[in-house]
Amino acid sequence: MVKVAKKEINREKLLNHGVKLLTQQGYHGTGLNEILAAVQIPKGSFYNYFASKEAFGAEVIRHYIDPFIQLLNSYLQNPKLDALTALQNYFSELIDELEIAGFKGGCLLGNLMGEVGDTSDVCRIALNSAVQDYQDLLALGLQTAQDQGHVRLDKSAEMMASLLTNTWQGALLRMKIEKSCEPLRECCHSLLGDYFRA
Amino acid sequence: MVKVAKKEINREKLLNHGVKLLTQQGYHGTGLNEILAAVQIPKGSFYNYFASKEAFGAEVIRHYIDPFIQLLNSYLQNPKLDALTALQNYFSELIDELEIAGFKGGCLLGNLMGEVGDTSDVCRIALNSAVQDYQDLLALGLQTAQDQGHVRLDKSAEMMASLLTNTWQGALLRMKIEKSCEPLRECCHSLLGDYFRA
Repeated sequence: MVKVAKKEINREKLLNHGVKLLTQQGYHGTGLNEILAAVQIPKGSFYNYFASKEAFGAEVIRHYIDPFIQLLNSYLQNPKLDALTALQNYFSELIDELEIAGFKGGCLLGNLMGEVGDTSDVCRIALNSAVQDYQDLLALGLQTAQDQGHVRLDKSAEMMASLLTNTWQGALLRMKIEKSCEPLRECCHSLLGDYFRA
Repeated sequence: MVKVAKKEINREKLLNHGVKLLTQQGYHGTGLNEILAAVQIPKGSFYNYFASKEAFGAEVIRHYIDPFIQLLNSYLQNPKLDALTALQNYFSELIDELEIAGFKGGCLLGNLMGEVGDTSDVCRIALNSAVQDYQDLLALGLQTAQDQGHVRLDKSAEMMASLLTNTWQGALLRMKIEKSCEPLRECCHSLLGDYFRA
């Protein structure tokens, strides 16, 4: 039992550090031994934890997105907020955090879609599933906002969620090279604050 | 003279191959000797051509974007097309090409913004300049479309060009993981075909 628990703790450490290193250095720029060394797990023991670097990448992707899904969900579940305000407040929180982080990192999913989305099928499938889950929750929020009369009814919530997801991803890339959150604010303002409005 | 010409030809070869390898393998995943080997230039002679890998990356970025700017310009200069149709036809040509390429590659600028946009300042500046030049030309097209009465006047051409650039970048990331040009069509349809319309 103790051994199983230790292995789980190590896996968790590896995933946490994987998020950090893959965000900073990219998939190709991050070596397996570098990840192990960072969390003081013996060199060469990577395959005790993960079947391959690609399998590790896929787990890092899921590990990364889950807290965002939980945060978005907590905004949408807040009974004091209508759904459109919940979505706007959620993105405002992300923008504030990115500003504090000095416009670094962006979104690991976006970075990995760019770097390995068309070359590693294992990562591609994990990315697709993560982005789709996230987008589905945005669509649910937009649908609720439609029901509440704040979002237009002549576009599907799914289409709007997809457009929002993609514009946000592109805006995150721009944020990094402009060192400014202006593209992110413009995304929220143009879509949630204007185009999608009832 | 012959020596200068030879050096220029080799530089051109290195840049062409750089576009290919950086698109396929990312910045960190591409070694200098690998680029040299691919174009049969002696190992170790990289610094005869470029000051550093970052300087090479910056030149590859410019080398990559210039043909897109030329193509977009040729559409906008076509006297048979109004500006909005020119923009739509330009993006349609890109979509057709991406479909033929099997949704591979996406946009090297987007990939590099994700991978090194916040870690290499040399690449960041080159990316910023390339994206801005491209976006300025889109803004010029949108402004002409405003003058021609096809695009709304209550938004600035610059803001719309920025939104289009960013949504297109995000849609390219999605294209890769979904193996579909649908996100790209949705971008053009929603923005050029709907939100921006007069």
